[in-house]
Amino acid sequence: MIPSTPSDHPPRPPESSALLTDLYQLSMLQAYHHHGMHGIAAFELFFRKLPAGRSFLICAGLEQALHWVESLAFVPAEIDWLAQTGRFRAEFLRALEGLRFTGDIAAIAEGTPVFENEPVLRVSAPIMQAQLLESRLMNLIHFQTLIASKAARCVLAADGASVIEFGMRRAHGAEAALLASRAAYLAGFDATSNALAGLSFGLPVTGTMAHGYIQAHPAEALAFEHFAEANPEGLVFLIDTYDIEQGAHRAAAVARHLADRGIALAGVRIDSGNLAMMSRRVRAILDESGLSSTRILVSGNLDEWQIASLRAVRAPIDVYCVGTSLSTSTDHAALDCAYKLVEYAGRPTAKRSPGKLTLPGRKQVWRHTGASGLIDSDEITLSATAHRSLHPARAHALLEPVMEAGGRIAPSKSIEEIRQFCRAQLATLPPALRKLDGRESLPVTLSDELTIAMASPHGPTHRRDPRRRRRLSAR
Amino acid sequence: MIPSTPSDHPPRPPESSALLTDLYQLSMLQAYHHHGMHGIAAFELFFRKLPAGRSFLICAGLEQALHWVESLAFVPAEIDWLAQTGRFRAEFLRALEGLRFTGDIAAIAEGTPVFENEPVLRVSAPIMQAQLLESRLMNLIHFQTLIASKAARCVLAADGASVIEFGMRRAHGAEAALLASRAAYLAGFDATSNALAGLSFGLPVTGTMAHGYIQAHPAEALAFEHFAEANPEGLVFLIDTYDIEQGAHRAAAVARHLADRGIALAGVRIDSGNLAMMSRRVRAILDESGLSSTRILVSGNLDEWQIASLRAVRAPIDVYCVGTSLSTSTDHAALDCAYKLVEYAGRPTAKRSPGKLTLPGRKQVWRHTGASGLIDSDEITLSATAHRSLHPARAHALLEPVMEAGGRIAPSKSIEEIRQFCRAQLATLPPALRKLDGRESLPVTLSDELTIAMASPHGPTHRRDPRRRRRLSAR
Repeated sequence: MIPSTPSDHPPRPPESSALLTDLYQLSMLQAYHHHGMHGIAAFELFFRKLPAGRSFLICAGLEQALHWVESLAFVPAEIDWLAQTGRFRAEFLRALEGLRFTGDIAAIAEGTPVFENEPVLRVSAPIMQAQLLESRLMNLIHFQTLIASKAARCVLAADGASVIEFGMRRAHGAEAALLASRAAYLAGFDATSNALAGLSFGLPVTGTMAHGYIQAHPAEALAFEHFAEANPEGLVFLIDTYDIEQGAHRAAAVARHLADRGIALAGVRIDSGNLAMMSRRVRAILDESGLSSTRILVSGNLDEWQIASLRAVRAPIDVYCVGTSLSTSTDHAALDCAYKLVEYAGRPTAKRSPGKLTLPGRKQVWRHTGASGLIDSDEITLSATAHRSLHPARAHALLEPVMEAGGRIAPSKSIEEIRQFCRAQLATLPPALRKLDGRESLPVTLSDELTIAMASPHGPTHRRDPRRRRRLSAR
Repeated sequence: MIPSTPSDHPPRPPESSALLTDLYQLSMLQAYHHHGMHGIAAFELFFRKLPAGRSFLICAGLEQALHWVESLAFVPAEIDWLAQTGRFRAEFLRALEGLRFTGDIAAIAEGTPVFENEPVLRVSAPIMQAQLLESRLMNLIHFQTLIASKAARCVLAADGASVIEFGMRRAHGAEAALLASRAAYLAGFDATSNALAGLSFGLPVTGTMAHGYIQAHPAEALAFEHFAEANPEGLVFLIDTYDIEQGAHRAAAVARHLADRGIALAGVRIDSGNLAMMSRRVRAILDESGLSSTRILVSGNLDEWQIASLRAVRAPIDVYCVGTSLSTSTDHAALDCAYKLVEYAGRPTAKRSPGKLTLPGRKQVWRHTGASGLIDSDEITLSATAHRSLHPARAHALLEPVMEAGGRIAPSKSIEEIRQFCRAQLATLPPALRKLDGRESLPVTLSDELTIAMASPHGPTHRRDPRRRRRLSAR
């Protein structure tokens, strides 16, 4: 262990620091440097298996990952800290000062559904560079994929109703709050409450009012009036601070005054209670008051299951506001994600740790689409292998080059482009995979070549029949 | 909703941005400003209930929260973005430009165990300021409290064995990774793998090597030798890349050569397989090779339950490396945390939303300690009330002033001080609360005054017998 002294002023924010990594990456780099190991390594990032109850994942986070890789460099204060630890030699630290990423990256596009064991990103670079990327690359791609996957389930459950992300306050810190908003939006959410996500990514930002605002006034109706005068656009009243039906009546009464002044009540929000029952009563109150275009928003520990239940009973709810369960993915707060060496200096490699076999060699994922446009199956092959599918016309490769020699190949896609792409991609999921129960996933097969490679001396020790395709994701 | 344009260069990192907040905070501020509501508001931050299976929480995150409050200010690019949304008036934005926090904060010290409904922080300030703090204050205190609470469980389960935090890669983004390392350390972890946490907080940093490092070499023994030559200090070999027992034999053989050159093998790490069984076999191999001081580290999806199981069967494991389950608190990725207005302009307030009652008025938490030094019970009272306890000599108030008129009262505590304080605090938990099953929690009572206040027109509508103390945390 390294006794170290804290810095009152870390040289830069954590998201851009090259030191936001596991120490062992730097120890391994020192060993590679010391022994002159500078061969090209290929690492692949993949999700070993889907959590119970999830039928697919949605790739996300590539944009932030590439930005980080492009700008990766140690600053003097970081090198100084490493020197202070006493673990690193001056010669190695000089090499680290000059280290930049000069390799290639291939990746599956953000917004694409992916399945077990499919490489979603491949780094090919001199081993020091490729190894150094591991911790932060996983940190970025794991999190946004986690949230986009959860968000897509909410979007499917809402089945056309509007969904809004409200999770900032219980997200795990600042970057999580910001990137959860992005991941939710690209997966189909309509807006976020997070103002910084509006500034940073151009997301539509929305919001209502808090209970404390109502409580600070001597009467609920007065609180509504004051709010409307100051914020006439997109006006939404929170009506459950004291009594929901009373709140709805008061909101309707205030709305009548406001209408005389040209201010429309866009919506009311219910944050507690039996939402199916209360949304009906509130709808009736609003309709009786001529407020049939005033929408009903609901919030309060919602998740995809509750949205589906409320949709199933045809609760008259227009907008579902989803917070903590989305921004922290409470049911599965992490995915079984790995970044593994698959080739070094032209030699395929794999680990054989119990329960954690990896597939050797650079791979490609082929997606087979049926005549209906729905995904039929996926096949993982060695990437050097020309694809020999039964239906070659309907198979396409998912991993595409995105960075060459350290530079991006194409300009960043806009978040709107990614969102539209994701919407189209979700439409290709077979009905069984769109269900919330997650009982089924896609058949992912290994190509013959890969099955043989797995049986090589660098792969698993038990031989497989190369003629038999192995189904990885069978449950 | 606000159509907004993305900024290619957000003006500053998310953790220091005043816009890392829910939009509705700013809408509410505009309403307060418009109507000249500048009275003093008191808000309290508390955890409504503990998650199932948790007997206590450990307060954490105050240091970062106070730092953020002290430096809270909008920069011109943030004001410009707000103006672009079309929602905010020029006059209000001018007020926002000049807004700084000038209020008072009282809080429970980091490292203190707390229970249901206990205010852990109270803000008293002009309502615009106090309201604006809500989202980010919760975001910071919720997360570190979540992680410190989980970490304390691991520390209790390890029962004196060493525990190290390895969770950076699957933490939810950069700030989560950094602050999870801090929260784990203050709750009793011995070190982290996160290099930036070393630089930022002076935490001890440690690490071993990855499977990819072994795989990049033609033979495991060669990989060990190379690593040792480059990194002789605190040397740990990862021995499960191919076969754990073979790996242990190879590590022992390499260690013999290294001993001749004055390099000691500090440890071996096992990352997969049956850890109870394999740690025994590896211990035997090491001992037979004269490596009785080489320690065994284990990792691989560990949590407090697995640590407890391995301790229960007396597995010869010296160090438990805990990753994802700690840095994301996978079993409970969020706590039921709230920041509620309890007083405005001298008038106590509460909300009565179904299932979400709050306690009106500024409160204090009194901790009663028995003769043994163990916590006996907690009592929540109105803070203006002198405490009348049955055992006044053994009761002390937990909420202490930490900020006055916008400035900190005392200098920051060092992380080592907080860690020692937390260790002493954990020792005051009664045995039933130290158990992992979380079946019991502390009796938290409400004072007579508070019970009466809850029955007031601003509190719940159902009356209570003021003579009867209400047990909030009964399960």
